[in-house]
Amino acid sequence: MVALSPSRRLRRTPFSEGVEAAGVKAYTVYNHMLLPTVFRSVEEDYRHLKSAVQVWDVACERQVELRGPDAGRLMQMLTPRDLRGVNPGRCLYVPIVDETGGMLNDPVAIKLAEDRWWISIADSDLLYWVKGIVHGWRLDVLVDEPDVSPLAVQGPLADDLMARVFGDSVRDVRFFRYSIFDFEGYPLVIARSGYSKQGGFEIYVSPGSIGMALWNALMAEGRDLDVRAGCPNLIERIEGGLLSYGNDMTRENTPHECGLGKFCDTHSAIGCVGRDALLRVAIEGPVRQIRPLEIEGEAVPACDRLWPVVDGDRRVGHVSSAAWSPDFGTNVAIGMVRMTHWDPGTRLEVETPAGRRPVLVRDTFWI
Amino acid sequence: MVALSPSRRLRRTPFSEGVEAAGVKAYTVYNHMLLPTVFRSVEEDYRHLKSAVQVWDVACERQVELRGPDAGRLMQMLTPRDLRGVNPGRCLYVPIVDETGGMLNDPVAIKLAEDRWWISIADSDLLYWVKGIVHGWRLDVLVDEPDVSPLAVQGPLADDLMARVFGDSVRDVRFFRYSIFDFEGYPLVIARSGYSKQGGFEIYVSPGSIGMALWNALMAEGRDLDVRAGCPNLIERIEGGLLSYGNDMTRENTPHECGLGKFCDTHSAIGCVGRDALLRVAIEGPVRQIRPLEIEGEAVPACDRLWPVVDGDRRVGHVSSAAWSPDFGTNVAIGMVRMTHWDPGTRLEVETPAGRRPVLVRDTFWI
Repeated sequence: MVALSPSRRLRRTPFSEGVEAAGVKAYTVYNHMLLPTVFRSVEEDYRHLKSAVQVWDVACERQVELRGPDAGRLMQMLTPRDLRGVNPGRCLYVPIVDETGGMLNDPVAIKLAEDRWWISIADSDLLYWVKGIVHGWRLDVLVDEPDVSPLAVQGPLADDLMARVFGDSVRDVRFFRYSIFDFEGYPLVIARSGYSKQGGFEIYVSPGSIGMALWNALMAEGRDLDVRAGCPNLIERIEGGLLSYGNDMTRENTPHECGLGKFCDTHSAIGCVGRDALLRVAIEGPVRQIRPLEIEGEAVPACDRLWPVVDGDRRVGHVSSAAWSPDFGTNVAIGMVRMTHWDPGTRLEVETPAGRRPVLVRDTFWI
Repeated sequence: MVALSPSRRLRRTPFSEGVEAAGVKAYTVYNHMLLPTVFRSVEEDYRHLKSAVQVWDVACERQVELRGPDAGRLMQMLTPRDLRGVNPGRCLYVPIVDETGGMLNDPVAIKLAEDRWWISIADSDLLYWVKGIVHGWRLDVLVDEPDVSPLAVQGPLADDLMARVFGDSVRDVRFFRYSIFDFEGYPLVIARSGYSKQGGFEIYVSPGSIGMALWNALMAEGRDLDVRAGCPNLIERIEGGLLSYGNDMTRENTPHECGLGKFCDTHSAIGCVGRDALLRVAIEGPVRQIRPLEIEGEAVPACDRLWPVVDGDRRVGHVSSAAWSPDFGTNVAIGMVRMTHWDPGTRLEVETPAGRRPVLVRDTFWI
């Protein structure tokens, strides 16, 4: 791997000091911010994530805050998911689409109050789209990036570690709900959520100045749980079918192509700017869709570009993410396949840098 | 330096193959795309840039294309620079501001026709802001990211190399103008511009499929000119006072704070969404502004966060970019300083990771 040149433009986080002390080996850049990708090795981090507990610097999940009388209306303009009846205390995975139904981001939205939302974004400057919409539609809402930096605690022992720092009541937080917990006098939003299938929490740390105190408290309290600094793990997220904006989907794709049709209430999400376009898609259905794909043979190299999926000479899709899974003894992958070839059990081929490989369309992800 | 993890989300370019063959040592990420930062060493690349000619993969300068009857009106909504009287054939450096006058990007806009512009963007998803404005204001204009990837040819021998590939008439292209030149049957926009002070061109390569053919032609024709793969050079760009969005300015700053007041015609740029806010700034003037700063002592480490500039105990500014300049035998830096301390000749101190250092406010950049 080549090196990453440091600059202010690739923003550090409130937890960077802890990440560096833990010996981070590689980063990616996400929302103009450093996101760790490897500590010991991707495989060793994976084993540990599945057996213990990790603290993740995911400050790069920046928040877009909507505040004001039109916040609710604006939030519904952004997504085809029907938000009526959603109460404060909930987190929702919401596809965000443009007027053509193209995916702009796939964040988790947090309803803080009737007139206040946080959108915890994937890797695109959603703030710019939202600000443009607000200006053009003259909405009464303030839009900004607040000083909020998520810190995730993930793994089977996450509840135990969190209970030590925030008290036993943190165990009662249900999936995709949040409650407010105190840390050093600051009220923090803590949700049961996170970018793994191993369970855990996301702490919306604010202000950033308490970041290292919280990091250190988690590390100190979790010593006997073998707590470690970790990060979203490529292998585990593919096994679990967790999509990555920019990798597995872009502005070219509709939510339906991404398998996110269940989050699109195109009949009732009145006001969503992409509603008309998506109503059409909902009626006809997508002609290609994301699928779990199993690539046979030895471990594939890093997937840094689309790998064509072919049926003989005919291109019928692509792979966008892939990794060797030690637990499943195969290459797990995420890709998009045309309708004509997307049935589970279909055998195709994929052109990897290591040559053409047999690939199997699966019914479900691995975990 | 730590490693950069490859993924599709960090997009490759039409020239990546050439960049890799040339032995790129480090990247940054810019508009979700790979931007090389080092080939031999930053200092060796710097020497070579100042004495020969380099070919730069700056495909990460993505284009936002405006096309349609409202393209001109939209372009003026985006910037406080007065665009009346601008004819096709021109390139313009245009601050782009939001409704509060905060900088969203500092691109070069290229007027292709009365109803067609390209905006060659710095590192933020300007497309999202523009699409939001277009939707909210119901403008008759198509906005997209076309298949256009800039390739820069920079250095004192740039004219000689370009003439060999595109003919002698390329020498007649004036600064910040463009003409159309043929390559393998494709008409390419070629402008005399680029992110260095050494002179040269930017070729707007389209389609990307001819990228490597052009790269190889430039390398083959320039062998006796010692042409090399290069990239924007940290030292040279600071010496020349070339600002970097995300490093030296952010959404927090007005153009006036960035020394870009000369590109703000707040009295005549009717329609610019940030005009009212900037009119206020233009009347009162900014209270802090970008300045060339000379940091005394040995070479400073990489500037990966703001370094406070202080007068005793009082914070009066910050450094945002810094590097050791072999040619000037000092650390050259870009920073922002408060009005009370911004006069040339003012002596202050800066808190670097290598300790507190004397710093001098200069009148002008170095080249």
